Amino acid sequence: MTHPIYQDFIQHVRDIYCLGTASSLLRWEQEISMPKKGLENRARQCELLSGIIHDRMTQPQIGEMLCKLYEPKVWESLTGEEQANVREMRRARERAVKIPKALVQEVTRVSTLSHEQWATARAQNAFAIFQPWLEKTVELQRQVAACLEFKNPYDALLDDYEPGMTCEKLDRLFGDLKKELIVLASWAEGECRKAGQKPIEGNFPTEKQKALCVLLLEKMGFDLESGRLDIAVHPFCSGMAGDVRLTTRYDASDFRVSFFGVIHEGGHGLYEQGFLPEHRNTPMGNAASLGIHESQSRFWENVIARGRPFWRHMLPVLQDSFPEVFAGVTQEQVFWWVNPVRPSLIRVEADEVTYHLHIILRYEMEQGMLKGDWKTSELPAVWNRKMKDYLGQTVPEDRLGILQDVHWSMGGIGYFPTYTLGSLYAAQWFHQLGKELPDLEDRIARGEWVAIRDWLRDKIHHQGSKHRADDLCRRITGEPLNPQHFTDYIRRKFA
Amino acid sequence: MTHPIYQDFIQHVRDIYCLGTASSLLRWEQEISMPKKGLENRARQCELLSGIIHDRMTQPQIGEMLCKLYEPKVWESLTGEEQANVREMRRARERAVKIPKALVQEVTRVSTLSHEQWATARAQNAFAIFQPWLEKTVELQRQVAACLEFKNPYDALLDDYEPGMTCEKLDRLFGDLKKELIVLASWAEGECRKAGQKPIEGNFPTEKQKALCVLLLEKMGFDLESGRLDIAVHPFCSGMAGDVRLTTRYDASDFRVSFFGVIHEGGHGLYEQGFLPEHRNTPMGNAASLGIHESQSRFWENVIARGRPFWRHMLPVLQDSFPEVFAGVTQEQVFWWVNPVRPSLIRVEADEVTYHLHIILRYEMEQGMLKGDWKTSELPAVWNRKMKDYLGQTVPEDRLGILQDVHWSMGGIGYFPTYTLGSLYAAQWFHQLGKELPDLEDRIARGEWVAIRDWLRDKIHHQGSKHRADDLCRRITGEPLNPQHFTDYIRRKFA
Repeated sequence: MTHPIYQDFIQHVRDIYCLGTASSLLRWEQEISMPKKGLENRARQCELLSGIIHDRMTQPQIGEMLCKLYEPKVWESLTGEEQANVREMRRARERAVKIPKALVQEVTRVSTLSHEQWATARAQNAFAIFQPWLEKTVELQRQVAACLEFKNPYDALLDDYEPGMTCEKLDRLFGDLKKELIVLASWAEGECRKAGQKPIEGNFPTEKQKALCVLLLEKMGFDLESGRLDIAVHPFCSGMAGDVRLTTRYDASDFRVSFFGVIHEGGHGLYEQGFLPEHRNTPMGNAASLGIHESQSRFWENVIARGRPFWRHMLPVLQDSFPEVFAGVTQEQVFWWVNPVRPSLIRVEADEVTYHLHIILRYEMEQGMLKGDWKTSELPAVWNRKMKDYLGQTVPEDRLGILQDVHWSMGGIGYFPTYTLGSLYAAQWFHQLGKELPDLEDRIARGEWVAIRDWLRDKIHHQGSKHRADDLCRRITGEPLNPQHFTDYIRRKFA
Repeated sequence: MTHPIYQDFIQHVRDIYCLGTASSLLRWEQEISMPKKGLENRARQCELLSGIIHDRMTQPQIGEMLCKLYEPKVWESLTGEEQANVREMRRARERAVKIPKALVQEVTRVSTLSHEQWATARAQNAFAIFQPWLEKTVELQRQVAACLEFKNPYDALLDDYEPGMTCEKLDRLFGDLKKELIVLASWAEGECRKAGQKPIEGNFPTEKQKALCVLLLEKMGFDLESGRLDIAVHPFCSGMAGDVRLTTRYDASDFRVSFFGVIHEGGHGLYEQGFLPEHRNTPMGNAASLGIHESQSRFWENVIARGRPFWRHMLPVLQDSFPEVFAGVTQEQVFWWVNPVRPSLIRVEADEVTYHLHIILRYEMEQGMLKGDWKTSELPAVWNRKMKDYLGQTVPEDRLGILQDVHWSMGGIGYFPTYTLGSLYAAQWFHQLGKELPDLEDRIARGEWVAIRDWLRDKIHHQGSKHRADDLCRRITGEPLNPQHFTDYIRRKFA
């Protein structure tokens, strides 16, 4: 029997999380279908909801219940899942209590409005339009970080996305990785050049792409009665207590954009659909961290769908759908087509190796922005310099530089590092999965992907936020996060 | 200078109304794009929001502010618009205070779930599926009515949609009208037969219909940057502080469904877009009543778009769009095609005359349901008997009978009468507009409809809920609601 205090507590938690899903739906709709002039009212709706959620999160009643739940006799009567909900709720509440409601609402309002300004700035290639909003955003995030009283302000923001992660750990991890990546990238680029495959070009009608994307989602085991696939400029996944919305975009001249986009978001979507229904609208019905979330999308997108076994299954499917494009194309050719290692300007189009140099660039910039190392007007130049240094690229315009990503417009400072963590975790899962499912490659090649989903579901999805990311990693693989698995994976892949 | 108490008051009001628009968006999304399995969480989201809105509406602070605002010295310092906001807010609050929060939330939850059950019941032509939900809904509405302590419980529900309207008034109005309608319907049906026009048949590709619907909306002056047109099984208009969503459906074999549907919803939409921006999220930025709202949709759909002058402009447009269908069709033929008077089973497909017999049937049933005159299981038989009596129709199956309308599934008992009130008001506006704009018919025939929109905007839209419906009617036309204008209009039209 569940403890009565817990029963009362979890009902409050469910209500708070459910209001959070309403807020997510408003944001989703803003991206998908909201008319232009609906923005002002939408910003106010989101602001009000964030205030209501903050009020509920910080009400003394929740604090009192948490105290009682931590009394040893009560605590010991709770199941592991219940303890996780209490622990995560305490964590969330402690953050909330430290941030004044007015600041929470201001952050929400500015992020809704700033997002539109960024979109305009990017479309017009005019950083000046976005500059005051970026400045405001950084200032607000600085205030948030100050409220949270971490040793390092960046840690305070990071901790929201990746509980327990710190700059100290990341500096070490990314410092080593950066050196290795520069070597790996140039080696893999060479391998890629040696392979010397011709690019695959053709016309890919949107309707056919869409049908294939739906087929992919079905084969991955994504439930389309409990989710949707829509079109958006910036692909994303929004999970709302089992109702999981994916988006993608279609490029008629390059099928890879929607293909890998949908597999990526589908990976996120499977995680969201894989939380146990009884945990909906509680921490246990949410991700352990964004790094773990990203490990799901990158696992499917890169480790599975950019691997050779996958194409043994998929090339014939594409040859059926687009005979004029894929007739006569070999496995080897398609492998290099989907894995073109070379430094480039755009993060979301980068290959698996150079990708992380894009992340490290952003990580370094965010730290500097938060510390106030540069004036906001200087940021494009800082960006461009780092691009030259790490990737050898000259940025011809801000649209292809500092304006390319949506995150800062939405207040998401401290978010980027989770992408790299995701890739590292994904490689480590793959290593482990290979040990546990010896015929893994054959299964992938036979299109039997649901077995993979079920392994992820069992090991990761069903766990929700029961374990912190590093704990989860140890439990699944027997060791902490180990970037060696990633570099080994890259070496094997491109050898 | 606005009084400081009012300033404080109106900020609270705006927040409450803005949360109401968030709730509307959740309902809109449920109809437009929500995946099937999202229902349970959506019901909970709506339930929580309705509870929050109820809490805010009933908080003592608002009551105290209202008291102060009604002090003569404060009251006299307010503008007419401010007084209207205070008056309407007091009205809304008085209703809210009388209904316990738990009941409000239960009504919301049941209406979200019941709606889906009704849709299933209708699709499967199985009243038994909907029966327990209808019973629950009637019981809940009975409880709501009891809380509100009106002399007649039905008045309590009616008053929510049409402030000040009562059964006593409606019984008199509808009693007279019913007799007259039965005579008028049989006469107009005869005229229709005498005209003896051939039906217009053809194939109407959805894309072309859609393009024409957008053209119609533009010509009416609807701003598509501040609204959308989507597809839904049950066409509706949802206005959210200037962001106005319209829906329609497309029937490839009958263009009239989308054509008149869009003009109807467009009429609602113009009202919603016509409230003054400074009144957004206040009573002044909302309709005077649902009868007045419906007068806008019916004015455009019936009075304008089913009239002869309209077709002098529109027939050539259709001949351009669908040459194979409309080549050689005459004005007279198209007039009778869009005005086929004959008794029928389905309300939304009924002509302008027999339509109101459908409403009176529902009005009578609602009164009896609320009083408990019949068991819920008997309702289909009651429906069918009345259809026979008033419209001479035999109902072959419940899908075409009691299951046809969405309203009862959403708790909307007391809503139907506003449709007939809308038609009566619309005819009265037309009479007045004819006096004020002498070249009205020529303008309609020239496609200059924005002049009409501007008259409506000035006389009705900009007024928001400043005046009660009957007051507004007197101000615009110099007399109270007078059904004679409607019967005169019908006689002139079909003569």
